Amino acid sequence: MKRIILLTIGLSMVTSIMAQEKKLFTLDDLLPGGRTYYQHSVPEQVFYTWWGNQLVKQEVDAVKTVDGEVLFTLNDINRILSAAGERQINYLLTVEFPYPDQTIAAVSEGDQYMMVDWTTKSVVESLKFEKGTENKDFAANSRCMAYTKEHNLKVMKADGKVIAVSNDGSLDLVYGESVHRNEFGINQGTFWSPSGQLLAFYKMDQSMVTSYPQVDIYARTAQMIPDKYPMAGETSHKVYVGIFNLTTEKTIYLHTGDPTDRYFTNIAWSPDDKYIYMIELNRDQNHAQLVRYDAETGEKDAVLFDETNDKYVEPMHPIQFLPWDSNKFIYQTRKDGYLHIYLYDTTGRELKQLTKGEFEVINVLGFNTKDKTVIYTSNECNPLQQNSYAVDMKGKHTLLDEGSGWHTPQLSKSGGMLLDSWSSPEVCKKYDLRTIGKKISTRNLLTAAEPWDAYQVPEMKVGTIKAADGVTDLYYRLVLPTNFDPTKKYPAVVYVYGGPHAHNVDASRHWGVRGWDIWMAQKGYVMFSLDNRGSEHRGLAFEQATFRQLGVEEMKDQLKGVEFLKSLPYVDANRLGIHGWSFGGFMTTSLMTTYPDVFKVGVAGGPVIDWKYYEVMYGERYMDTPQTNPEGYKQTSLLNKAQNLKGKLLVIYGGNDPVCVPQHTLSFMRACIDADTYPDLFTYPGDEHNMMGTDRIHLHNKITQYFEDYLK
Amino acid sequence: MKRIILLTIGLSMVTSIMAQEKKLFTLDDLLPGGRTYYQHSVPEQVFYTWWGNQLVKQEVDAVKTVDGEVLFTLNDINRILSAAGERQINYLLTVEFPYPDQTIAAVSEGDQYMMVDWTTKSVVESLKFEKGTENKDFAANSRCMAYTKEHNLKVMKADGKVIAVSNDGSLDLVYGESVHRNEFGINQGTFWSPSGQLLAFYKMDQSMVTSYPQVDIYARTAQMIPDKYPMAGETSHKVYVGIFNLTTEKTIYLHTGDPTDRYFTNIAWSPDDKYIYMIELNRDQNHAQLVRYDAETGEKDAVLFDETNDKYVEPMHPIQFLPWDSNKFIYQTRKDGYLHIYLYDTTGRELKQLTKGEFEVINVLGFNTKDKTVIYTSNECNPLQQNSYAVDMKGKHTLLDEGSGWHTPQLSKSGGMLLDSWSSPEVCKKYDLRTIGKKISTRNLLTAAEPWDAYQVPEMKVGTIKAADGVTDLYYRLVLPTNFDPTKKYPAVVYVYGGPHAHNVDASRHWGVRGWDIWMAQKGYVMFSLDNRGSEHRGLAFEQATFRQLGVEEMKDQLKGVEFLKSLPYVDANRLGIHGWSFGGFMTTSLMTTYPDVFKVGVAGGPVIDWKYYEVMYGERYMDTPQTNPEGYKQTSLLNKAQNLKGKLLVIYGGNDPVCVPQHTLSFMRACIDADTYPDLFTYPGDEHNMMGTDRIHLHNKITQYFEDYLK
Repeated sequence: MKRIILLTIGLSMVTSIMAQEKKLFTLDDLLPGGRTYYQHSVPEQVFYTWWGNQLVKQEVDAVKTVDGEVLFTLNDINRILSAAGERQINYLLTVEFPYPDQTIAAVSEGDQYMMVDWTTKSVVESLKFEKGTENKDFAANSRCMAYTKEHNLKVMKADGKVIAVSNDGSLDLVYGESVHRNEFGINQGTFWSPSGQLLAFYKMDQSMVTSYPQVDIYARTAQMIPDKYPMAGETSHKVYVGIFNLTTEKTIYLHTGDPTDRYFTNIAWSPDDKYIYMIELNRDQNHAQLVRYDAETGEKDAVLFDETNDKYVEPMHPIQFLPWDSNKFIYQTRKDGYLHIYLYDTTGRELKQLTKGEFEVINVLGFNTKDKTVIYTSNECNPLQQNSYAVDMKGKHTLLDEGSGWHTPQLSKSGGMLLDSWSSPEVCKKYDLRTIGKKISTRNLLTAAEPWDAYQVPEMKVGTIKAADGVTDLYYRLVLPTNFDPTKKYPAVVYVYGGPHAHNVDASRHWGVRGWDIWMAQKGYVMFSLDNRGSEHRGLAFEQATFRQLGVEEMKDQLKGVEFLKSLPYVDANRLGIHGWSFGGFMTTSLMTTYPDVFKVGVAGGPVIDWKYYEVMYGERYMDTPQTNPEGYKQTSLLNKAQNLKGKLLVIYGGNDPVCVPQHTLSFMRACIDADTYPDLFTYPGDEHNMMGTDRIHLHNKITQYFEDYLK
Repeated sequence: MKRIILLTIGLSMVTSIMAQEKKLFTLDDLLPGGRTYYQHSVPEQVFYTWWGNQLVKQEVDAVKTVDGEVLFTLNDINRILSAAGERQINYLLTVEFPYPDQTIAAVSEGDQYMMVDWTTKSVVESLKFEKGTENKDFAANSRCMAYTKEHNLKVMKADGKVIAVSNDGSLDLVYGESVHRNEFGINQGTFWSPSGQLLAFYKMDQSMVTSYPQVDIYARTAQMIPDKYPMAGETSHKVYVGIFNLTTEKTIYLHTGDPTDRYFTNIAWSPDDKYIYMIELNRDQNHAQLVRYDAETGEKDAVLFDETNDKYVEPMHPIQFLPWDSNKFIYQTRKDGYLHIYLYDTTGRELKQLTKGEFEVINVLGFNTKDKTVIYTSNECNPLQQNSYAVDMKGKHTLLDEGSGWHTPQLSKSGGMLLDSWSSPEVCKKYDLRTIGKKISTRNLLTAAEPWDAYQVPEMKVGTIKAADGVTDLYYRLVLPTNFDPTKKYPAVVYVYGGPHAHNVDASRHWGVRGWDIWMAQKGYVMFSLDNRGSEHRGLAFEQATFRQLGVEEMKDQLKGVEFLKSLPYVDANRLGIHGWSFGGFMTTSLMTTYPDVFKVGVAGGPVIDWKYYEVMYGERYMDTPQTNPEGYKQTSLLNKAQNLKGKLLVIYGGNDPVCVPQHTLSFMRACIDADTYPDLFTYPGDEHNMMGTDRIHLHNKITQYFEDYLK
């Protein structure tokens, strides 16, 4: 099924015939933040969640079974809350079901967390938090809520009693929050043990880290907001892992040794609460160890295994124990070149590589306890797709859907059912309930109507070209101008990202096209995106082709895309533009200054300009440090290429961008001024790395106008 | 002689005939910072200075009399220095003569200050300073140098001994530096008594002032540089005046009472060292007092007189004692509506108004001790001119030059001679030595050649139109496109400043035209500047028309200029642009958002956007405070007009502008984004309020390109 040629005609063959009757888009129709976006671009959405093994539908004023039977209404819940003297809630869309076997609904309102038994009509628990609490993390088994306030970690017990796990939290000393700048799959700072009696948590000392001076212009007189930001090669923070014991109310710390220049990632509990597993990585990111600690003493119990790579290893997934065998767990690694699932035992012995092949596991959903399988998604069907599979402990795997499109399923408690929410170029949006068994049975819950049916949708094509290495297939998406006339010559704009952990082209609705592509197509541009080497889901070699020289190989691939564009008879080779954000802003600026004769106009948003201004965790993984890779930093720094700028280049940044800090863009402006070249500039004061809401509309009007002014 | 109609044809009537043979300018030819600016735009410059009553010419390697006799050479001086074991100097252009009657030359090299007697061939004094010393101030009579280092004040005696006047200096507590943000004519922080035995100095406590967070992007990780910046209506600094006694090495402070919200300005010594005179002003700036303090005790001795105004008084000039009568002094004030010179005695009695009329004294040069006259410049001949006069104690005044042009003379020690450096629309640059007596005799030292003679210079016209009040004459300068064709239609660009203490049009060389005007004329634009009400040298009512509503009347006047422009048959009324910097950036942005249909394109540099972000001293003089004049602040805030923007507006700011802080421009961008309007933006990272050197060339290329893109 791999590498099928995808060259599909979009919806517009039909729509162009009826073009006169169909509407044109507004930018508000097409972009998140637009006033009419949800109405005109987003297919019907429904909210489902698993209550154990039962799928329930969350509506504003009722929760129903998939058969439409009402479990309870908003009025029911509010009557119960009211009788108990608790505050009312406004909707049931976000209700949760923490106990598979109990008729308990958990709801939040403001800083209050409440659990209601809709059978006994009683409020089971009501936790009231101070204002400004963050990172709430509920342990269903102990009914305790961990949370943070002003960088301190606290636990509220079921009876409302608050225990302060830490008291010395500050900007310098952070408890219970995500660490290592959310790299290595880290997105939280608290980890309840299975019983809910022990709370593992991160403590981060960043007193030694330089602060980036973000400026708040909304203050009466502008104010500096320091933001700890360790730049590549500079002093990094130190992380500790604590374990708080609910019974003793004492904290111990894992005996990791000196945490300087080490990453403590992917924390997992043993099923019996006795051990903590963690993947430890050196600052070079080329040597990882799976380590087990005694959760009572904090002593190191064992190093289960090592993983090394001459470029980098990137642990992203905590180990997961088999529900039916607490001596075995699965581990995900790219050690054979693709991300796959492996079965290990707790001695650290590899028992079996469960998935294998030139594809990548995208998401492990959980386990089917009856069949003893792991349920996951991968792009085995096609590099552009994400489909669901079950694999048993012998490595036999079964496709769980019909093998097309892009699926983002949720698994039931015991893994017997999937709520499969998916789309494909032909399917706008479907919610299918799939029962996993010898035969997969599918019940369609909703097939959404295509909101764009009322509009003139441009033609889209997807296909492959060869990368600059002459071997690798790269996927592109081409959007033709609305009401395309093949005898005309059109300007073309490349939208690029090009960095790791992302892609632009996939087999979801409209091939994952961006609203702005449609907008530009409507204005008469050919739009093109190509996922170059370095982007996600294509294996380790594909990604690591860029090692120590980010942008170099990526640009070569993008130039292959340009060659292809120029080969199209309807593309005006003299009117090529390029736009990208973040890594794509880096790519845009790199291309405009490395190959100054290719693109006439570029718009770079929130760009990296010099990797030395990017942070340690992400930056050093791909670039090593400025000290150990001076040539690579020099070669890729756009400060050294400012003098090459010939075309029109607009650089845009969020005034308080904490990701690609303003120093990138401002340093580039300075370099261009010194080199007597002439970029343009815009900023969104107060915004961070991305513009949201109406700012997003303003931004895309701004970007569009720039191409209209200089490319059309 | 007043209000003659000035409507003069520039050089180009001649030059256009020979246009083919003449060169076109490059931008580098026209602007300071350009590589060829000095060569191609600046008339020959010579350096003269007074040695008592003898005028000497400073050349690189010799100092000569005006008759060409060599006083000494660079080799002479270096031989003397070398013999004494002192360091060599590189040129004599900046040599000074501290003693009228001694053959002593003072020279500086690096952090060393040396005095050489070229007759005795000896080094009279050599002072070596630590690195980082600033604000050096030499007392010739005591041969001591006052200076500051890291906000502390020190004195180095002739023998090299250093006395620390202060030790607790810091960013919060500043000694010996200029205070009150250089308003009220203040530009230094130390004031030697006539004998050189007492040193008055400013001490400023600004610990209570909010810091503006300037960001240094050149640091490895960007760094905040706090800059104390009291914004209108906010807490201001407190100033003290100390007197350091060289003999006792003790400091006393003037007993001024609580310095909160008071300005201590225009410090002057009595000729006998016994008293300090100072003008004290309330924060409202509508009540000034001339106060005398005992310099030994610091006790307040007398309030000589008060001056009030219902809008504001602005003391700019310390009193000056008559050299022949130490009981009398002159005082400059606009109390009759124009800036004039008054004679007072030390009891505070006004003896005589020495100058009078609807003109303004521009600069008091000093005294002629033989004739007992005050020598000054004024625009009595014509509001566009500056000419030299002598006035005796009866108020009889005599013109000292031929009555045309713009003169910036320097007076000899006893006031008998003027080195008159001047230009006019007809005179490129002249150095005349004038001997003051019953008959003025003039000896021309140099008549510089016009460097623009080799170029195609556009035609320039100057004239008057009526202000929006229907009465007041306003002066404009019009620059026609190079190789002007009256049958064509040209786009026109207004260059505007419009604020107090400045003007654009005067009777100096080429009517004070800006190099960029010439550049734009060469590119085919009509260039226009008008000095609206509120600008300088036209009297108090003219200036105060703008009180509490900066921009409002100024804009009305500028619209009169636009009416005039539109009446010109060769101006395309649909292609009007505007550009200005600082107050002119405020005017540009104000006009673009208050009268959005007038200008198609604007470029605003370093603008004030809301006067609440401007500093206390200048801002509150014209606007009062946001608390006492909320309507005025609201009416003039461009944050409230962002939604009106229709034309193309590029706003440019220095990344570290300490005058119009970046908060202005950034807040305006935010307001426009929120209002869905579309300004453009550029910044010069690391630059302050004005772009200097090659940045200035880059800036004007950028500005020009914007008009070329959108107005042409």
